[in-house]
Amino acid sequence: MQVLGPFGRGERERGLQSGADVVVIATTSFFRDVAADVRAALEADSNVVVSAEESAFPWLADQALADELDGLARARGKTVVCAGMNPGFLFDSIVVTATGPARFVRSIRVERSADMSLFSETILKRVGIGFSESEFEERLARGQITAHTGFDQQMTIVGKALGVRPERFERTIKPLYSASDYQLKNATVRAGETAGVEDTYIGYVDGSAWYTAIFIGHIDPVTLGKPPRDEMWIDTDPPLHFEINPGLNPQAAAPALLANSVRRVAAAQPGWLTVVDLPPAAPL
Amino acid sequence: MQVLGPFGRGERERGLQSGADVVVIATTSFFRDVAADVRAALEADSNVVVSAEESAFPWLADQALADELDGLARARGKTVVCAGMNPGFLFDSIVVTATGPARFVRSIRVERSADMSLFSETILKRVGIGFSESEFEERLARGQITAHTGFDQQMTIVGKALGVRPERFERTIKPLYSASDYQLKNATVRAGETAGVEDTYIGYVDGSAWYTAIFIGHIDPVTLGKPPRDEMWIDTDPPLHFEINPGLNPQAAAPALLANSVRRVAAAQPGWLTVVDLPPAAPL
Repeated sequence: MQVLGPFGRGERERGLQSGADVVVIATTSFFRDVAADVRAALEADSNVVVSAEESAFPWLADQALADELDGLARARGKTVVCAGMNPGFLFDSIVVTATGPARFVRSIRVERSADMSLFSETILKRVGIGFSESEFEERLARGQITAHTGFDQQMTIVGKALGVRPERFERTIKPLYSASDYQLKNATVRAGETAGVEDTYIGYVDGSAWYTAIFIGHIDPVTLGKPPRDEMWIDTDPPLHFEINPGLNPQAAAPALLANSVRRVAAAQPGWLTVVDLPPAAPL
Repeated sequence: MQVLGPFGRGERERGLQSGADVVVIATTSFFRDVAADVRAALEADSNVVVSAEESAFPWLADQALADELDGLARARGKTVVCAGMNPGFLFDSIVVTATGPARFVRSIRVERSADMSLFSETILKRVGIGFSESEFEERLARGQITAHTGFDQQMTIVGKALGVRPERFERTIKPLYSASDYQLKNATVRAGETAGVEDTYIGYVDGSAWYTAIFIGHIDPVTLGKPPRDEMWIDTDPPLHFEINPGLNPQAAAPALLANSVRRVAAAQPGWLTVVDLPPAAPL
């Protein structure tokens, strides 16, 4: 098996010319922005592991384009899956896995607290970190603060596995202000600026909260009283409670899940699949 | 989709005559004891979900018979999988799932403490509960106390997913004596008799403990200081720690996992597969 990637846009031609079994595309967050790379990979007869959050369920971003690439994958007998850490594990596949011991599911609650201190300044800004109150409000209103990306896709995937479709989503992004100055690896955050966000996303089914997901991204989550942790509660009888403690480290877990997905994507049925269509990833 | 089962031996003919898509066989623990039922189901063009612990990886119990039934399943285009709670989830598929965020795995430790108080007397006796010290030692020596069944199979499955094969297994079954009398739903346990067992199973790779699994089955695990809990530690960098708290309730989780496996087994590739070849079970 030959594997190429992750590779950036500039390296695309070199990567695809060699006709790899599996290409890993870990570039941007948006489906439309990776579509050309995915198409090129499929036309070069490669399977694709992609990290772009929207590509976890690309039909939500662009149904026609998703249908076209899904059809191309089937025609070529190749597989495309978004299989990173989040989407790809937290908020989706591990949640579905946690429902396995349940006869039914009334509702789901997932909370993640993540340490953002090692991310690049670009990602910190996009998440919403390092802003004064007015800057934060302004950027939030302009849609320039995205906090966690992928909730719609992930709730849709979980809903599909459980046979329900959320009728609407509700979101609150709350700024968390810093009490002191921080000199991070890639950025500076001063007292009074945002040191994190609390992003609450609720999917409703039949008028009730069916899936409540809370993402806290913070540069000092321990001081906040929210040490890094991933927790899931499945409301069933008896209730189920899963915990990953400490929570997954994004710098370690995200690339591992991409790499560990190469074999399962190469072995899967053709088409643009979701991560819950696949067996678990493992570091073989 | 038509589903039949779980059904006992007496009901076999009736069940199989109707040609179900999926037959659930939840009878005994031993591969050889379910082989005839599985063969009959495959010959009636049914897929099979089986709970027998040894059938999680039947090649260990009887390689020729396992090869024969695997071949029959492939010839018929049908799938057989052992997919209950344990084997089927704890000690195998959730362990492999927990390695997904790891770049490599040095070793694995899994601990389960289970409340056995609601089981039948037959199962309590087989686990090792309700015996005086001399009775326990005698039965253990005669192989009549099995504590947890399926460790070999489960460690082999996890090893296969991670590309290693344990070269030997080491086991210790320790009796846990009761300090008081218990009147259970289905049995009586007096002070001084065994109220539980601690079953430690270690799979070695290259001379080192690679997978350590501890199963505590006890009629009053809270008093023992071991409330029902499932925990997994993956030794990698950084280490991973997963917890199900409280631990899975066997009366609820085991039948749910069998039922929730029907669709994924019907949709799987043909052959006698293991649970880590399948996507997660979910209550659709």
